[in-house]
Amino acid sequence: MSKFRLDEVDHQILDMLIDNTRIPFTDIAKKLLISAGTVHVRVKKMEDAGIIMGSSLVLDYDKLGYSFIAYVGVFLNNTSQTKFVLQRINEIPFVTVASVTTGKFNIFCKIRAKDTKHAKDVIFMIDDIEGVYRTETMISLEESINDKKRLMHTIFKDI
Amino acid sequence: MSKFRLDEVDHQILDMLIDNTRIPFTDIAKKLLISAGTVHVRVKKMEDAGIIMGSSLVLDYDKLGYSFIAYVGVFLNNTSQTKFVLQRINEIPFVTVASVTTGKFNIFCKIRAKDTKHAKDVIFMIDDIEGVYRTETMISLEESINDKKRLMHTIFKDI
Amino acid sequence: MSKFRLDEVDHQILDMLIDNTRIPFTDIAKKLLISAGTVHVRVKKMEDAGIIMGSSLVLDYDKLGYSFIAYVGVFLNNTSQTKFVLQRINEIPFVTVASVTTGKFNIFCKIRAKDTKHAKDVIFMIDDIEGVYRTETMISLEESINDKKRLMHTIFKDI
Amino acid sequence: MSKFRLDEVDHQILDMLIDNTRIPFTDIAKKLLISAGTVHVRVKKMEDAGIIMGSSLVLDYDKLGYSFIAYVGVFLNNTSQTKFVLQRINEIPFVTVASVTTGKFNIFCKIRAKDTKHAKDVIFMIDDIEGVYRTETMISLEESINDKKRLMHTIFKDI
Amino acid sequence: MSKFRLDEVDHQILDMLIDNTRIPFTDIAKKLLISAGTVHVRVKKMEDAGIIMGSSLVLDYDKLGYSFIAYVGVFLNNTSQTKFVLQRINEIPFVTVASVTTGKFNIFCKIRAKDTKHAKDVIFMIDDIEGVYRTETMISLEESINDKKRLMHTIFKDI
Amino acid sequence: MSKFRLDEVDHQILDMLIDNTRIPFTDIAKKLLISAGTVHVRVKKMEDAGIIMGSSLVLDYDKLGYSFIAYVGVFLNNTSQTKFVLQRINEIPFVTVASVTTGKFNIFCKIRAKDTKHAKDVIFMIDDIEGVYRTETMISLEESINDKKRLMHTIFKDI
Amino acid sequence: MSKFRLDEVDHQILDMLIDNTRIPFTDIAKKLLISAGTVHVRVKKMEDAGIIMGSSLVLDYDKLGYSFIAYVGVFLNNTSQTKFVLQRINEIPFVTVASVTTGKFNIFCKIRAKDTKHAKDVIFMIDDIEGVYRTETMISLEESINDKKRLMHTIFKDI
Amino acid sequence: MSKFRLDEVDHQILDMLIDNTRIPFTDIAKKLLISAGTVHVRVKKMEDAGIIMGSSLVLDYDKLGYSFIAYVGVFLNNTSQTKFVLQRINEIPFVTVASVTTGKFNIFCKIRAKDTKHAKDVIFMIDDIEGVYRTETMISLEESINDKKRLMHTIFKDI
Repeated sequence: MSKFRLDEVDHQILDMLIDNTRIPFTDIAKKLLISAGTVHVRVKKMEDAGIIMGSSLVLDYDKLGYSFIAYVGVFLNNTSQTKFVLQRINEIPFVTVASVTTGKFNIFCKIRAKDTKHAKDVIFMIDDIEGVYRTETMISLEESINDKKRLMHTIFKDI
Repeated sequence: MSKFRLDEVDHQILDMLIDNTRIPFTDIAKKLLISAGTVHVRVKKMEDAGIIMGSSLVLDYDKLGYSFIAYVGVFLNNTSQTKFVLQRINEIPFVTVASVTTGKFNIFCKIRAKDTKHAKDVIFMIDDIEGVYRTETMISLEESINDKKRLMHTIFKDI
Repeated sequence: MSKFRLDEVDHQILDMLIDNTRIPFTDIAKKLLISAGTVHVRVKKMEDAGIIMGSSLVLDYDKLGYSFIAYVGVFLNNTSQTKFVLQRINEIPFVTVASVTTGKFNIFCKIRAKDTKHAKDVIFMIDDIEGVYRTETMISLEESINDKKRLMHTIFKDI
Repeated sequence: MSKFRLDEVDHQILDMLIDNTRIPFTDIAKKLLISAGTVHVRVKKMEDAGIIMGSSLVLDYDKLGYSFIAYVGVFLNNTSQTKFVLQRINEIPFVTVASVTTGKFNIFCKIRAKDTKHAKDVIFMIDDIEGVYRTETMISLEESINDKKRLMHTIFKDI
Repeated sequence: MSKFRLDEVDHQILDMLIDNTRIPFTDIAKKLLISAGTVHVRVKKMEDAGIIMGSSLVLDYDKLGYSFIAYVGVFLNNTSQTKFVLQRINEIPFVTVASVTTGKFNIFCKIRAKDTKHAKDVIFMIDDIEGVYRTETMISLEESINDKKRLMHTIFKDI
Repeated sequence: MSKFRLDEVDHQILDMLIDNTRIPFTDIAKKLLISAGTVHVRVKKMEDAGIIMGSSLVLDYDKLGYSFIAYVGVFLNNTSQTKFVLQRINEIPFVTVASVTTGKFNIFCKIRAKDTKHAKDVIFMIDDIEGVYRTETMISLEESINDKKRLMHTIFKDI
Repeated sequence: MSKFRLDEVDHQILDMLIDNTRIPFTDIAKKLLISAGTVHVRVKKMEDAGIIMGSSLVLDYDKLGYSFIAYVGVFLNNTSQTKFVLQRINEIPFVTVASVTTGKFNIFCKIRAKDTKHAKDVIFMIDDIEGVYRTETMISLEESINDKKRLMHTIFKDI
Repeated sequence: MSKFRLDEVDHQILDMLIDNTRIPFTDIAKKLLISAGTVHVRVKKMEDAGIIMGSSLVLDYDKLGYSFIAYVGVFLNNTSQTKFVLQRINEIPFVTVASVTTGKFNIFCKIRAKDTKHAKDVIFMIDDIEGVYRTETMISLEESINDKKRLMHTIFKDI
C-alpha cells in the first residue's frame, strides 16, 4: 500500500462514496469544503491506482425470485485442474463467488438459485465439469449479514 | 415478484446500471431513446419497490492491505441463541457475510483480515461471543470469482 | 410370524389391497372366486393379528405447498433423554419419521416443510427441545422414490 | 396451489379420509350433511387435480419379519449418473425411499430388511450398481415415529 | 436355538469349562454329582450341535513382544471385492479379527504387532491388497478389557 | 521377553496346545518323544512366567442367539474419568473388548447382543455411565475372521 | 525484512553455519577470503538483529529411547483459554511443538514419547489441563523428513 | 540404548551443548573440572555412537519473511507409492517435516512459506506429485512452542 498514500481527504471522499456511490461530486465537494474538481482528481487518482475498481448495484434477490443461497465445496481429481475448472465455473452465472481454499475442499463456491430444484441444476452443472470429483453442499437458511460497508469504514478509520 | 412487473425498458436500465452505477441518467436516456425523466421515474419506482436497494463501491482489498479471506463455521451451544449471536457478529466489521446454515455449522461467516495474525484476532472475537461453542476456519488461498454482474444480467435476460 | 400363517388367499387379498386400499371387497371376491364374506373375514383376521394396521392417504405434497424435504440428525446431551425428546419431537407435525439410530446421530428425523424459511423454523423447534445438543441437516433436492408397494408385493411373493 | 382452491368442505373430507381411507362416502356425507354424490364429486376433483394420488396400506413390518431399517448414503462417481443409478435402485424392492440430497451423499435411501444378513445383501446390491462409488450405512435401532397423519391434518388446518 | 435344548446340567458343565477348559471331566462329574460318562456325552452332544467349537489358549502377548494393538478400517474400491479381499486379509496372521461393517468402512480389522514399525508393515500389507482403496488406523493405547467369560456366564444364566 | 527363553521344545508344546487346549499331556509327550513329566514342567514354567494365562472356550454365539456384533466408540467428558468409566463398562457383560484409543474416541468397545433391540439396550447402558459424553456405533454385518491361532503359530515360528 | 539488508557475504556465512554450527570462524574466514574478525562482526550483527536466534543440537531420539512421535489436536472449551492452556502445555517437556491452528483443532501439538504407554501418559497430561475439552491423536509411523537445512539454503539463495 | 551407556559426565556435557552448541570445549571442561581432551573424547564417542547427529541453526523465520506455517495431510492413491512420494516431497525445500501417519492421512507434512500465495504454490507442488490423490491443509495462526531443549534436558535427567 506504500505507493498509494491516501490522505485524510481521500478517506473522507471514500467514506461518502461507500454510503452512496451515486452521490454527485459537487455534494462531496460542498461537505468537504473543497472544489468539485479536486474531488474528481482524487477519485480519478484512486481509480488509476486500482484502489477503486468500480461500483456494484445492490439488488433484493428475494424480490427477484432468487432467494436460494448455497455454499458448494468442490473436490477436484487433481489440483493441476484448478485453473481450468475455475474457468468453467466462471461460465455459470449462478456462482457469485469462488475461492481456492485450504481444508477439505479444493474450491469453495457461493451460489444463488431460484429454489431447491434450480439449486440442484446449478450443483449438477458444477458436478459435470471435467475434473470435478465430488461436491458437498451447505444451504443458507437465512443470510443475515451481507455488508462490506462496515469493513470499508473501518479500513479508512484504521489507516 | 408478481407486483413488480418489470418491463423491457426497466431491464435495459438495470443492465446499464449493473455495469456502471455512476452512469448519468442522461446517458441511459440517450442510449434507450427515452427521456432522462423517464429513466429517473423508472429507477425511483424500482427503488421504492425495494428491488434496487442501493449501490456498493468495489475496492481492491489487496491494495488496501486486507488480502486475507477466510470462511468461519460457527457452532452454537443452542440455536435459540442464533439471533443474539448474529447481532454480536454484526458488530465485528471484518465479518462481511453471515448466514444461518444447514449441515454441520449453525452460522457460516466470511471474514476479511490483514494477515494471519489479524485473522486469528477476528476468529477469537467470534469465538468469544457468548453462546458460541466452537468455530472451524477454512482459508481462501485465492478468490478467483467475486462477481454478481453475470448473475444480474442473467436474471434480467431470464425474466 | 409363526402364529399368523397367511395362506395363498390372504396373499392375494393383500396384493389387491396394496394396489388400492379402497377396492370394494366384492371386487376382490369376484377376482379370487370366493365370497365377499370370506374376504371380510380374512381381512378382519389380519387386522386383529395386527398385520394390517390401517391405510394411509397418498397426497401430492408439492401441490399442497409442502415441497421441502430434509433429514435432520439430532445429537442428545445424554441418551437417557431419548424417550423424552422423542415425545417432544412427536408434537411437531412437520416431522414425519423419527428413528433412534447408530452412528453419529442419536435420533434421525425426516421433515416436510413449505420452503427454506419454514424448514429453518422446524429445525429450530427441534433444536430448542431440552436435551437436544445439536442438529445437522441434509436437504433433499428431489425425492425420486417413495414407494412401499414394491416391498409389500415382494414380501408376499416371498412368504 | 392457486388453481386447486380447496374449500372448507374439501378439507373436512380429506380430514376424514386421512384417518381412514376405507371410510364409505355415505358416512362422510352423513357427517358433513351433504350428499354422497357431492363427496364423490369432490374426491374425484381432488384426484383429477393430482392432490390425492392414492392410498397405501399400513402393515406391521415387524410381524411380517422385516424389522430391520437402515439409511444408506450413496456416493456416485459422477452426478451425471444420478438418473441411471436411481432407476437401478428402483429395481430393489427393499429400498422404500430414495432422495437426491445435498451434503456429503449424492443419494440417500431408506431400506427395510429381514435382519443383519439380509441388510448386508441389500446394501451390496446398491454397492454393485454401476456408477456407485461407495455407501455409508446408519442403522435404525427403533423407529419411533412414522406418521404423516399429523402433518396432513396440520396442512388442512393451515390452509 | 430351538433344536439345542440345553438343560440345567449342560449349563453347569459349560460354566465350569468356561473357567478352565482343561478341567478333567471327572472333576466336573464330582461337583455335579453325575458320572464322568454323562459329562462326556453332554460335551460331545454340544460339540456335535456346533455350540462348543473348540478352545483357545490365552497368551500374554505383551510378554511375547506383541504389545501393539490397532484397529484398521478398510475402504474398498467396490464391495463386490469384499470376499476376495477378506481371503487376502486372512493370509496376514497379524490380523486377528475382521468384520464386514456398516458406516464409513467396508471392512474393519483388529491387528496385533510388535511395535510401531511392525504395525506400519502390517497396515501396508493390507493397503497393498488389490481392491483396497484406503485404510484408516486407530491405535489402542491400552487394552483394558478382553474377556468373553463374563458374556458366556451371562448367556447361560439367561437361558 | 529376555527372561523367558522359550526353546524349540516349548514352541512345539505351545503349537500343539494352540490347536487343542484339551490335548492330554501324554499325547504331546508321545509326539515330541519326551516324557509327560517334561511336558508338565514346561507348561507349568510357561504358566508361572505368565506367558500362558489360561484357556478359553470357543462357542458359536450365533447358535446361542447372540449374533449381533457392534463396535462402540466412546467419547468422555474428560480423560481423567477413563479409569472409572472402564470399571463401569466392565460391569456390562455384553462388552467383550474395551481399549483406550487414539483418534477420535477415548474408549473403543466391541459388544455382542441378541438383536437390534438388545444392542440398543447395551449401547444405552454405556451411554448412561457418568462421564460418558457420547457414543458412536458401527455394526458388524458379518464377522469373517476371528482367529488368533494363525498369530500364535506365527509368533512361535518367528521367535 | 527491510532493515536487515543481508549481503552476499552474510549469505555465505549463514550457508556454512547451517551445515555446521560448530565450524570455527577462522575456517569460515579462510573460505571466504575475509578476516575472522569480519566473520565475528557479521554473525554478531545477525544475532543482534534477531535473525540468528541460536543453535540446537540434533540428537538421535530413537537411540535415546524416544522413538514414539504423535500429533495431538486439542479442542478447547473456549478460545479465550488459548493463552492459559499453552502455558500449561509448555510445562510438559514431551510437547516439542504447539501451534494455534485453523480448522477443526484450536491447538495442534507434536509430542515425542518413549512408547505407546508413555504416549498415553503425555496425552492424558494434555487432556487434564483445565479448559481442554477433547484431544485427537494421530501417530507417526515413521518420520521420513525432518530437515530445515534445505529451507535455509533456499531462503538465502532466494534473497 | 543398552550399548551407549552414557554416564553422569556425558549428561552434563550434553546439557551444556543443548543450551549452546557453539560453547568452546574448554568452557565445558572448566565447569566440569575435567580436561578439554576428555570433553573432546566424550563428544566424539557420542557422535560415533550416533547419539549426537549434528547441530542446527535456529533462525527467526518471521524476520526472514517466511512467517506462514501450515500442516498438510496427504492422501495417496496407494500406500505402495509412499516411498516414491516421500522422495519427491523431499525435493520441495519448503516442507520441513514429513511423517508416515496412522489415521486419515498417509503422509503428514509441515511447510513454511512466505505468505498465503506462496503456501498455495507449495501445496500445489505436493498435489502435483504422481500418486498424491488429495491434500488437506490446516494453517498455523501462531506457533507458540517450538523447543526441543526442554525435552532434551528431561531425557538426560531421566536416564
